[in-house]
Amino acid sequence: MQDQVNPVVTLHVCVTCRRGDEPLEPKDGRSGFKMQLALAEAISQGQAASIDLRPAECLSGCKRGCAVALVAPGKWSYVIADLDPECHAADILTFAEQYSSHPTGVPAWSERPAIVKKSILARVPPISLPGSEEAA
Amino acid sequence: MQDQVNPVVTLHVCVTCRRGDEPLEPKDGRSGFKMQLALAEAISQGQAASIDLRPAECLSGCKRGCAVALVAPGKWSYVIADLDPECHAADILTFAEQYSSHPTGVPAWSERPAIVKKSILARVPPISLPGSEEAA
Repeated sequence: MQDQVNPVVTLHVCVTCRRGDEPLEPKDGRSGFKMQLALAEAISQGQAASIDLRPAECLSGCKRGCAVALVAPGKWSYVIADLDPECHAADILTFAEQYSSHPTGVPAWSERPAIVKKSILARVPPISLPGSEEAA
Repeated sequence: MQDQVNPVVTLHVCVTCRRGDEPLEPKDGRSGFKMQLALAEAISQGQAASIDLRPAECLSGCKRGCAVALVAPGKWSYVIADLDPECHAADILTFAEQYSSHPTGVPAWSERPAIVKKSILARVPPISLPGSEEAA
């Protein structure tokens, strides 16, 4: 059972993202598909093991693929773009761990991995559910 | 009481957004601040009256201000950018009404206002709460 600071954190990975002039087919040749594999591999080796990794079809960050989104109840959502599956899986999972540990999902700027500092595409305030406390 | 198709929909408006070379001060001269006023005025006149309008400080869409975000339990979140408070308040509220009426918050593309079609900055899958049904 997760506690209030660490509810279930989901990392959505856009598996349809392409980088540069990558072709539409084959789909498993797309950088987004490779990013999903890279993240799953790192998680299977123990990094950010509590993160719920899920494939997504389009986060509307197409001009800046690859893109991922971090979400959790009561926390801000973050969409991070301009990612390279060859370089950034570990950094994304580091940020996911920081996000998981922060009560409202806003880790200190200075502690974030460099790619996260420069590649946040958007963030969204937490949903206020009926009866829930305002998080931010 | 809202039903499942129409839970409370929140429209977050970045009041710190600036367009072009707008100065930092005064804050109420920023386009984001003006967008909040324009949306509040339209809602007070009856458009999208069920929408919960809230000011936000930074949705990380700074390079593409003004920006707003639509969120609701069980629905995709949308961040929409490149907005002009002089032109787009009514279109955003039209999209908010379409979003409110759609079970998972994904209105048909063909029916969306033109500014929404071209200005979606990012979208985020709905949070799966423990015990809730997967929405998309």
